[in-house]
Amino acid sequence: MQKFGGSSVADAESIKRVAKRIVDTRRQGNDVVVAVSAMGDSTDDLLDLAHAVSPIPAPRELDMLLTAGERISMALLAMAIKGMGHEALSFTGSQAGMITDATHGAARIVDVTPKRVRAALDQGAIAIVAGFQGFNRGTGDITTLGRGGSDTTAVALAAALGADVCEIYTDVDGVYTSDPRIVPQAKKIDFIQSEEMLELAASGAKILYIRAVEYARRHGVKLHVRSSFNNNEGTIVYNPEDGIPNGGNVEEPIITGIATDSGEAKVTVVGVPDIPGKAAEIFEIVAKTNANIDMIVQNVSEAATGRTDISFTLPSGDGQRVIEALEAEKTSVEFLSLQYDDQIGKLAVVGAGMRTNAGVSAKLFRSLFEAGINIEMISTSEIRISVVTRADSLNEAARVLHTAFGLDGEDVAVVHAGTGR
Amino acid sequence: MQKFGGSSVADAESIKRVAKRIVDTRRQGNDVVVAVSAMGDSTDDLLDLAHAVSPIPAPRELDMLLTAGERISMALLAMAIKGMGHEALSFTGSQAGMITDATHGAARIVDVTPKRVRAALDQGAIAIVAGFQGFNRGTGDITTLGRGGSDTTAVALAAALGADVCEIYTDVDGVYTSDPRIVPQAKKIDFIQSEEMLELAASGAKILYIRAVEYARRHGVKLHVRSSFNNNEGTIVYNPEDGIPNGGNVEEPIITGIATDSGEAKVTVVGVPDIPGKAAEIFEIVAKTNANIDMIVQNVSEAATGRTDISFTLPSGDGQRVIEALEAEKTSVEFLSLQYDDQIGKLAVVGAGMRTNAGVSAKLFRSLFEAGINIEMISTSEIRISVVTRADSLNEAARVLHTAFGLDGEDVAVVHAGTGR
Repeated sequence: MQKFGGSSVADAESIKRVAKRIVDTRRQGNDVVVAVSAMGDSTDDLLDLAHAVSPIPAPRELDMLLTAGERISMALLAMAIKGMGHEALSFTGSQAGMITDATHGAARIVDVTPKRVRAALDQGAIAIVAGFQGFNRGTGDITTLGRGGSDTTAVALAAALGADVCEIYTDVDGVYTSDPRIVPQAKKIDFIQSEEMLELAASGAKILYIRAVEYARRHGVKLHVRSSFNNNEGTIVYNPEDGIPNGGNVEEPIITGIATDSGEAKVTVVGVPDIPGKAAEIFEIVAKTNANIDMIVQNVSEAATGRTDISFTLPSGDGQRVIEALEAEKTSVEFLSLQYDDQIGKLAVVGAGMRTNAGVSAKLFRSLFEAGINIEMISTSEIRISVVTRADSLNEAARVLHTAFGLDGEDVAVVHAGTGR
Repeated sequence: MQKFGGSSVADAESIKRVAKRIVDTRRQGNDVVVAVSAMGDSTDDLLDLAHAVSPIPAPRELDMLLTAGERISMALLAMAIKGMGHEALSFTGSQAGMITDATHGAARIVDVTPKRVRAALDQGAIAIVAGFQGFNRGTGDITTLGRGGSDTTAVALAAALGADVCEIYTDVDGVYTSDPRIVPQAKKIDFIQSEEMLELAASGAKILYIRAVEYARRHGVKLHVRSSFNNNEGTIVYNPEDGIPNGGNVEEPIITGIATDSGEAKVTVVGVPDIPGKAAEIFEIVAKTNANIDMIVQNVSEAATGRTDISFTLPSGDGQRVIEALEAEKTSVEFLSLQYDDQIGKLAVVGAGMRTNAGVSAKLFRSLFEAGINIEMISTSEIRISVVTRADSLNEAARVLHTAFGLDGEDVAVVHAGTGR
């Protein structure tokens, strides 16, 4: 199973390059199934058109519209492969048996029945499948899987077909210990546990979508994140229960990677009466706005006033909406005021080795303290420590911790132009 | 049933204009089904991409690719209608039950089962159907209907749904007695028999495709060709067996229209042995090139040599191919030489009234003779006379005959910018 994103198939030349790569894999004796995204920015172009004809495009029609994008790229890719003398057949999500629920724009996969894909492989053909799209049996309508949908398509098909590996092709060499644009000493990770990958993705690493990683973990699919611009080995994402992949280092590092996220903001609800149920009230109001809140911190109550402050972080884009919703309920919740701060940075240190190694948080706090970087919020999981700093200290914090936890590589990582998805 | 071509949905503004028109028709109490073509030149853009990735794109994949075009326009149109507060649902060819054979690029319709379209109408929704595309049950693959396919989609759906009328929206006011760019006195025809329309379409009138007219004739579908830029009545294409439509003039004119075609060339096979079977040999060779030959003229054999000349016309684009094929068989056919002439013009005078009126051909020959225009070839059907002239006399010939047969209108026809399809 291989997946190519939009930047890998942005124009006719790229499509031919990808086709050659696919044919090479086939000629090495592998059955090949490919999930492909829409060309370059074509999905954004279609979205612009949709908003030009209707302020709030109907979700069913939006899915119908957007799925035209992968239809174009997959047909071109199949043509290019056939032009190189190898049999290829393209399939829409519906033809490939990607059965979903009926939620337009963010459908969940309920079944994968890739009969036609299997038949194509049995004939010796390469199967090209449209990423991102599915089909609901009840309504007979076309659906889309939402953000990162093509990764999910690839993983779901890999699981259903029992593929040896699901290769996610991108424009960087793999998963790095940190973003090389921020930490020049960042190095490529050869092997990473799926749980660590999940924490990194959730903390701002853009290379893989959480949903695809989660699906891969649940269905035992081995992921290989690699570059479509060279033949280097990339990063293998594996389940530790399945054992460490061939060639894997048995000595696992305590810290695997550091993710940064500068797109978050902090909301503080000041002077909340410290009585049971108030936090629930606040987060019910926030939940109604569909904002994706992340870290939550509640200060110790001041005995004198009987009031406390509650802070939480969320994507900056959701800020306005949440502030308005809370302001509207100020009287009923009885808080005193709201503070909004979008000059924050979020950083997460992730490593499965944390489970068995004490002292990680102590080292983290000491390193940042010595660098003169103030920590504003802290939250932890079993294998992750996240901290919030001022936005302008974020990159420095990442570099300091990268060095402190021994992640620095010997060479400076090469960053491709246009890195990112 | 309404059909809108690519120029009517070329951009967001046009789509909103068309949406408004459709909603108006619905609000007048009609059930509305719309067949729509791909936006503007988007089909050509997709074709260019296909040829950029593969010199001879695989037909199955080409159909997969091109059908993305109507998917985009139909989804946008449905969104725009919903944005105006009316329920609308878009359907692909397959969802609308356009069942075809498996011939990619030029599929024939074998069945039309518009269950979902009917259900949408029963719910009070407007149904938007992708033109040009179908679905083959045997292979499970997407097909396209070939040139003029969206007209055919509209007519086939109108027949299957028992629509009162199939309105073909275009960028001119209807069918004209001749091309107004060539004959300024041309006037709009209010009513035309389907057989006459067939002859005009076959003789170069671009307004409707032969196949859609033929389908309409066989299934008793009334066509209304009209402008998408105004509310004027256009041209009704009807079957005389069904009676003349309301308001129709019972006195039918002898000549209904004059079509011109400057895209043809003439091939003359010189010195063919005048023995049985030679013409068959020649046209078998031509048939293998898939060239679309039209008029055929064989001269009287010269007694002295026992040889004759055979001339035929064909679209200029097919010329090269046919000349090469014939040249390759020169020895076996034993002809002397080939002549190729692309400086010809073809003109057809069409009218069901010819059946009962003698003297039409005499009048035609005299009028052209008096205007000093030489006729190079002649061919006739029951309701049509076609002649070939020099290319540079074609327009003049059309004007002379338009006047001679009393077709001139009082006003000069208004020609829209960008007339034609």
